[in-house]
Amino acid sequence: MSKTIKLEQKVQAKGHELAAELRELFRSKGIFVVNLIGSPGSGKTTLLQAIAPKVRGRAAVIEGDLATDVDKRRIEEAGLRAHQINTVGACHLDAMMVRDALETFSIEGIDLLFIENVGNLVCPASFELGEDIKVAVVSVTEGDDKPAKYPKAMRVASALIVTKADLLPHVRCDIDRMTRDAREQVPDMPVFVTSAEDGQGVDDLLAWILERARARA
Amino acid sequence: MSKTIKLEQKVQAKGHELAAELRELFRSKGIFVVNLIGSPGSGKTTLLQAIAPKVRGRAAVIEGDLATDVDKRRIEEAGLRAHQINTVGACHLDAMMVRDALETFSIEGIDLLFIENVGNLVCPASFELGEDIKVAVVSVTEGDDKPAKYPKAMRVASALIVTKADLLPHVRCDIDRMTRDAREQVPDMPVFVTSAEDGQGVDDLLAWILERARARA
Repeated sequence: MSKTIKLEQKVQAKGHELAAELRELFRSKGIFVVNLIGSPGSGKTTLLQAIAPKVRGRAAVIEGDLATDVDKRRIEEAGLRAHQINTVGACHLDAMMVRDALETFSIEGIDLLFIENVGNLVCPASFELGEDIKVAVVSVTEGDDKPAKYPKAMRVASALIVTKADLLPHVRCDIDRMTRDAREQVPDMPVFVTSAEDGQGVDDLLAWILERARARA
Repeated sequence: MSKTIKLEQKVQAKGHELAAELRELFRSKGIFVVNLIGSPGSGKTTLLQAIAPKVRGRAAVIEGDLATDVDKRRIEEAGLRAHQINTVGACHLDAMMVRDALETFSIEGIDLLFIENVGNLVCPASFELGEDIKVAVVSVTEGDDKPAKYPKAMRVASALIVTKADLLPHVRCDIDRMTRDAREQVPDMPVFVTSAEDGQGVDDLLAWILERARARA
C-alpha cells in the first residue's frame, strides 16, 4: 500500500470519527438529519423549497456549494433557516465543514435538518456527515440510466427521489428502469417520483422521512 | 504543508507529466483532442451521437463512466469507434487511464478524438488528459445558475456548450445569464446553444472545433 493511500485512509478515518460525534450530537438534540446527494441541477434545492412550507418552524437546511449563496437565499425565501457552506474547490461536504458550520449556525429548536451536498453524484457518496440517512436525487431529464451508472450513490442511499416528473411528457425516461437499477443495489429501495412544479410525490416523501425520524427516536 | 498534501501533489505532478506525453503523442499523430466535462445527464453522449454522422471515419470516442458500457454502445451505434473506461470508484478520468486505454484502443487514421469524462462538473476540471481543449457541457434543465456555481469548470473550458435547448419552452433557464456568468470566468468564452433533438447549434459547434484543430495544426 502506498504512503498516499495510507495517509488518505487516516484522513478518512478521522472524518468518520468526527461524523460519529456529529451523529451523537444530532441525536442528543432529537434532530433527524437527511443528506441529499445528486447531480448539479438535479433539483435538490427546488425539492427543499417545495418541502419548506410543510416543515416551517421545525426544520433547517445546510447548503453545500463550491461557490455562491444562491441556494441558501432560495431556502430562506421559502421560509426555512439556512446556512451556506462554500467548499471553494472541494467536490463534497465533509464532517469538518459541517462541524464548523454548527459553530455559527444554530440548530436549537428543530427536529429535522436537511444537508444539501455539493452537486455531484459521485464523491458525496463516500463521506459521512453524521446524517441519519442519505437520499439520492435524480431528475427525469438526466436520463433513466443514472441509477445503473452511479451504483455507489444508490448503494449508500435509503431512497431514490426522482425529480422533475412534470417534464416526463417531454423526455425519454423510463421510471421502471430507474427503479429496477436502483433496487439492484438496494433491494426494496423506496422510490419517490416527485415534481416541485405540481407538487406530486412531495407529501409522500415527507411522510416517509418523518416516519423514519419517528422510527429512530 | 501536511504529508498528505505533499504526496497528493507528487501524484498530480506525475499525472501532468503523463498528460504532457499524451499531448505529444496526439500531436505527432495529427489528432485534435476534446475533453468533455459535464454533470451526469447533461447530454454529453447524446451530443456526440449528433456529431457522429458528420465525422464518421475521422473521429473516435473514449468514454469515461464509473460503471456500465452503455455510452460506448450508443456511440458505436452512431457509427464511431469507441472505447469504454470504467473508473469503478473514481470521480474523473486521469492521464494514466487514457494511456492504458490506448494500449488496446487504436487511434490510427483519425484526426479527432473526443474524451467524454465521468459525469461530474467538479473533479474532471482539475485533471489533464493530454487534450487540446476542454469544453463544459450544461443542459438547460439543470438551471441557469450552473456557470456561476461551478466556476472552475468554466475557467478551464474553451467553450460552454448548452444542451437540450429544445426543452427551453418547458423550463426556466436564462441563456444570457449563463453566458454572462461563464464570461466572468473567461471573457469572450464561446457559447453554443445546441439540441441533439432538433440539431440546432451542432454544425456551428463542430465547425468551431474543426477550426480550432486547423489553428493548432
